[in-house]
Amino acid sequence: MRGPGEESVICDRFEGVFAALTTPFAGEGIALDGFKKNILRYNTTGLAGYVVLGSTGEAVFLADDEAEALTAAVREAAAPGKKIIAGASREATRSTSAFVNQLARLGADAALVKPPHYYKAAMTEDVLKRYFFDVADSAAIPIIVYNIPQNTGLPVEPRVIVELARHPNIAGIKDSSGRLSNLVEVIKGVRPDFSFLLGSGGLFLAGLLLGASGGILAAAAAVPEICVEIYSLFHRGRLVDARKLQIDLVPFNKALTETLGIPAIKHALDLLGYSGGPPRPPLRPLDESGKARVRELLEALGRLPGTGGPAAGWPA
Amino acid sequence: MRGPGEESVICDRFEGVFAALTTPFAGEGIALDGFKKNILRYNTTGLAGYVVLGSTGEAVFLADDEAEALTAAVREAAAPGKKIIAGASREATRSTSAFVNQLARLGADAALVKPPHYYKAAMTEDVLKRYFFDVADSAAIPIIVYNIPQNTGLPVEPRVIVELARHPNIAGIKDSSGRLSNLVEVIKGVRPDFSFLLGSGGLFLAGLLLGASGGILAAAAAVPEICVEIYSLFHRGRLVDARKLQIDLVPFNKALTETLGIPAIKHALDLLGYSGGPPRPPLRPLDESGKARVRELLEALGRLPGTGGPAAGWPA
Amino acid sequence: MRGPGEESVICDRFEGVFAALTTPFAGEGIALDGFKKNILRYNTTGLAGYVVLGSTGEAVFLADDEAEALTAAVREAAAPGKKIIAGASREATRSTSAFVNQLARLGADAALVKPPHYYKAAMTEDVLKRYFFDVADSAAIPIIVYNIPQNTGLPVEPRVIVELARHPNIAGIKDSSGRLSNLVEVIKGVRPDFSFLLGSGGLFLAGLLLGASGGILAAAAAVPEICVEIYSLFHRGRLVDARKLQIDLVPFNKALTETLGIPAIKHALDLLGYSGGPPRPPLRPLDESGKARVRELLEALGRLPGTGGPAAGWPA
Amino acid sequence: MRGPGEESVICDRFEGVFAALTTPFAGEGIALDGFKKNILRYNTTGLAGYVVLGSTGEAVFLADDEAEALTAAVREAAAPGKKIIAGASREATRSTSAFVNQLARLGADAALVKPPHYYKAAMTEDVLKRYFFDVADSAAIPIIVYNIPQNTGLPVEPRVIVELARHPNIAGIKDSSGRLSNLVEVIKGVRPDFSFLLGSGGLFLAGLLLGASGGILAAAAAVPEICVEIYSLFHRGRLVDARKLQIDLVPFNKALTETLGIPAIKHALDLLGYSGGPPRPPLRPLDESGKARVRELLEALGRLPGTGGPAAGWPA
Repeated sequence: MRGPGEESVICDRFEGVFAALTTPFAGEGIALDGFKKNILRYNTTGLAGYVVLGSTGEAVFLADDEAEALTAAVREAAAPGKKIIAGASREATRSTSAFVNQLARLGADAALVKPPHYYKAAMTEDVLKRYFFDVADSAAIPIIVYNIPQNTGLPVEPRVIVELARHPNIAGIKDSSGRLSNLVEVIKGVRPDFSFLLGSGGLFLAGLLLGASGGILAAAAAVPEICVEIYSLFHRGRLVDARKLQIDLVPFNKALTETLGIPAIKHALDLLGYSGGPPRPPLRPLDESGKARVRELLEALGRLPGTGGPAAGWPA
Repeated sequence: MRGPGEESVICDRFEGVFAALTTPFAGEGIALDGFKKNILRYNTTGLAGYVVLGSTGEAVFLADDEAEALTAAVREAAAPGKKIIAGASREATRSTSAFVNQLARLGADAALVKPPHYYKAAMTEDVLKRYFFDVADSAAIPIIVYNIPQNTGLPVEPRVIVELARHPNIAGIKDSSGRLSNLVEVIKGVRPDFSFLLGSGGLFLAGLLLGASGGILAAAAAVPEICVEIYSLFHRGRLVDARKLQIDLVPFNKALTETLGIPAIKHALDLLGYSGGPPRPPLRPLDESGKARVRELLEALGRLPGTGGPAAGWPA
Repeated sequence: MRGPGEESVICDRFEGVFAALTTPFAGEGIALDGFKKNILRYNTTGLAGYVVLGSTGEAVFLADDEAEALTAAVREAAAPGKKIIAGASREATRSTSAFVNQLARLGADAALVKPPHYYKAAMTEDVLKRYFFDVADSAAIPIIVYNIPQNTGLPVEPRVIVELARHPNIAGIKDSSGRLSNLVEVIKGVRPDFSFLLGSGGLFLAGLLLGASGGILAAAAAVPEICVEIYSLFHRGRLVDARKLQIDLVPFNKALTETLGIPAIKHALDLLGYSGGPPRPPLRPLDESGKARVRELLEALGRLPGTGGPAAGWPA
Repeated sequence: MRGPGEESVICDRFEGVFAALTTPFAGEGIALDGFKKNILRYNTTGLAGYVVLGSTGEAVFLADDEAEALTAAVREAAAPGKKIIAGASREATRSTSAFVNQLARLGADAALVKPPHYYKAAMTEDVLKRYFFDVADSAAIPIIVYNIPQNTGLPVEPRVIVELARHPNIAGIKDSSGRLSNLVEVIKGVRPDFSFLLGSGGLFLAGLLLGASGGILAAAAAVPEICVEIYSLFHRGRLVDARKLQIDLVPFNKALTETLGIPAIKHALDLLGYSGGPPRPPLRPLDESGKARVRELLEALGRLPGTGGPAAGWPA
């Protein structure tokens, strides 16, 4: 495991900062043009790659053909070397397997898969293991397990992750639980090339310190430079600077992921010149007070032109 | 509101016992033949109607074309006068609306709709109300709100139901929360023709006493006669007899809905000569001990031939 | 088990309506005079007895000497035949045992005992059973298990209750969980003289129908006549009348036990001429809007003189 | 805020590692001799101080006179400069205030106070703030708020902590929630001398990185040297070494605080030559398999003589 100032010797892990992509909509459909333009701009940053069809991408609101079009589009627009992870969760084993492979054909490098969670009481550890093993067995690309109990109501416990990690085609976990103890327990028990990707932007630096290989961050859709810089400062051993950036990021990250949610990410994108736009109903656009709050938070991060905030020297 | 021994004066409510239908599978597909045979047999009972594509029907595991075929099949097989309620929940407003109307075209009399629940933190009461009102506005058939927090992780509170009941196209609620206090609070606040359908077989009689109009019961897929008899005894004022049946039903009902789940319902169907079969993965068929338990519970209810149980005199 | 219209053949059960007593305070101390006056007035009703030192009695705020004085006072003031149940929960086994027997010496007929719940993760079913068995072994009076997970965070599951009921000195359960399924599961498994006392006023009638022996009700501290009448009507087979009373009671009961809480019970007592008074801090007296709501709810029940509400004919 | 390698300029904060003391029992009483011997040995380590009457100390099982004797004993045995924090939580405001001041008279430097949590529904943010302000107003020593929702069932949210921190006599928070996001949110909003003490041994280093001033750790009762070394390495900028120790500590810490609990801490103490002993019922001593697990975990940490584990060079 690498620490600050150490060289990496492992190549296959998913490392670095991945942006959790939003899905721009236009009228009743998706706005593929805006989606691709966002990616072209992300290509100029130090992002390691992109996650399409995740929670931030409103994947649960998309038809299958929309999901496929988005996956093909990110493949087409992504710069060489940027990895593409695609959300591919369904409730039935067979549906997930089929969808994983369809997205693989369209260019995904890995699939992000949540536990089935509608029949919570039936999802014992054995059933979950069988599900992930079956999906991984049939998948043309590596599987990344996605733990997000605040949305699914079903945590995947660290001891289950450790067992899943024995499957050669289960490559890692994205953990959005906010419980860093998961990270430490998992890392003690898995092979060194297993990827641990943080899903909590506010805990990114702490997670890196404890051995996370990277993060899949909603904040990285809006302020990729800051997230990449935290990662970079950490690996150059500049902990004090990294910490300052991390702490500054917290209020913005909390608004994006807890209090205001996806509409706030999309409004931040609009303010920053990306293609954001409204969410799909039943989600609603921000009201004026929410919009003002997003602007204020971006100003505090120095990400809006002319505001002269503390980080005004950041590259646009 | 009717009590035991009183005449009904309301005609449009969903009243009586509805069977929550299972979905028989055959290999990779659905077994429409078995599904229809089940309904033909149910037609001979006092069931008020059928719920297709519910939680018991493994709706979350079905492709859209399978869901449509099942809805058309139940419409075709159902005897005249049997009402058909179809589960039509999606996460996006537009998807739910479209699916409700597609199922209406295929013969559904009403649609059962859960709250969207993936983005739990964003599902404020206002957002939920807007969602249900939008769906009801565009729906060709009445909407029945479906409260099942143990699966969705998102309760629909009684005060929200009371407000939803003001919409002329929101016809009722199915409540599977197990909290009878919901019933009493809702009934105090809604119009007299609003339907309150219990989803908890163990609380069916108590719910009737407090004013429920009926139930949508998993137990009614396996032992419709017992559920119908509880309803009938209650309305004839024979509380003591109704209570005995209700209490006898509890262990079987608990196995079906809590401890053993859908595979137990399907195994009970197999034992009783219906078309049951295995669930779809990741759900698993019962192991031998589970099967023995289902047999034992059916014997205790006198529903298996030759066992001479306490209710052996029941009509087959 | 008795049903409506049947004769009781069991004598030792705790049956009927028990008032969950409040604790009137005066300055820094307890107001024993007011407390006893309340009981003298309750003596004129059909209440089966009294629960002192329960959740309604703010027992967690009382010093041991206050608790002892209240127990002695209720014993002294209670009319012959009224049973006295005293809350005696502590976290350590030895402390609970000692307190149970101290309250027994002061006149309690039975002790109400919650599970220890601070160390939730350690309170396995085995540990809970050992705790209750140890307490019951050493107790001079019968133990009634108290299940109130909304306050303790630790449900006592029906299967545990069934095992506890095998101990000859564990006489019953008070269930405030609001889950009537508990009742049905417990009653199927316990000896006929085991008492099941409902703690949810809104579910009282439904619980009686399913076999509850009675209730310990906060509402019975304010409107004992209504609670007693529900019980009486049920046992005379007058279900329709009982149901009307039950449904009318729900909004008041919900305010007392959920939305406004103990301060509302005490304010209702003040309005009705009992000794209510303020709660102990950190609980706070009702604000004006809460007081108005309590008055309005009592008027709707016809319990305030001169209001001519629907139940104005009730005895004062 | 200090980072690795920076000098501290703040003097009044509670900083460093505090051992959460256990309470040794002897027969029916407490074993003050063993308790004091433990402290004399702790005095030789780099611990910043001691927490008596905390969750680890089985405070909820102690009589008031026992609690007072333990506080006096730790004051007597503690080396000069070791700070003493005493748990002083009661449910009633008046009781907590009185107990805080009684423990202050016996030598406590600060009081650790949980939110009252029995009447959860009544404990609004306003009520909690009033409670802590009232206690702090009357307290002769500083108050440290104690957030341990897994035991209380009542989280104290970061925004509440930020408001409590405005009171000059509320000196800090001990957070055992396991949610490091709490830390970051609190630290952004409080004065620089407000103490943030981690209660989660597995997150200690990550918390220090994000600005925690120290920790109150159950693990520090058994292996104070390791906890102190993590703190020291962090402040000397030796992150890679600190991280190794932190990760090694995780399995032992998890056994002490989650899977095996207080009996495991006490058994570890016995193995290490401290005075451990059995817990008070209803807690139970470890069974043989639990004891073997504790031994194995201590051996893995190199803390048992003769085992030659990876840290065998640690001072005894």
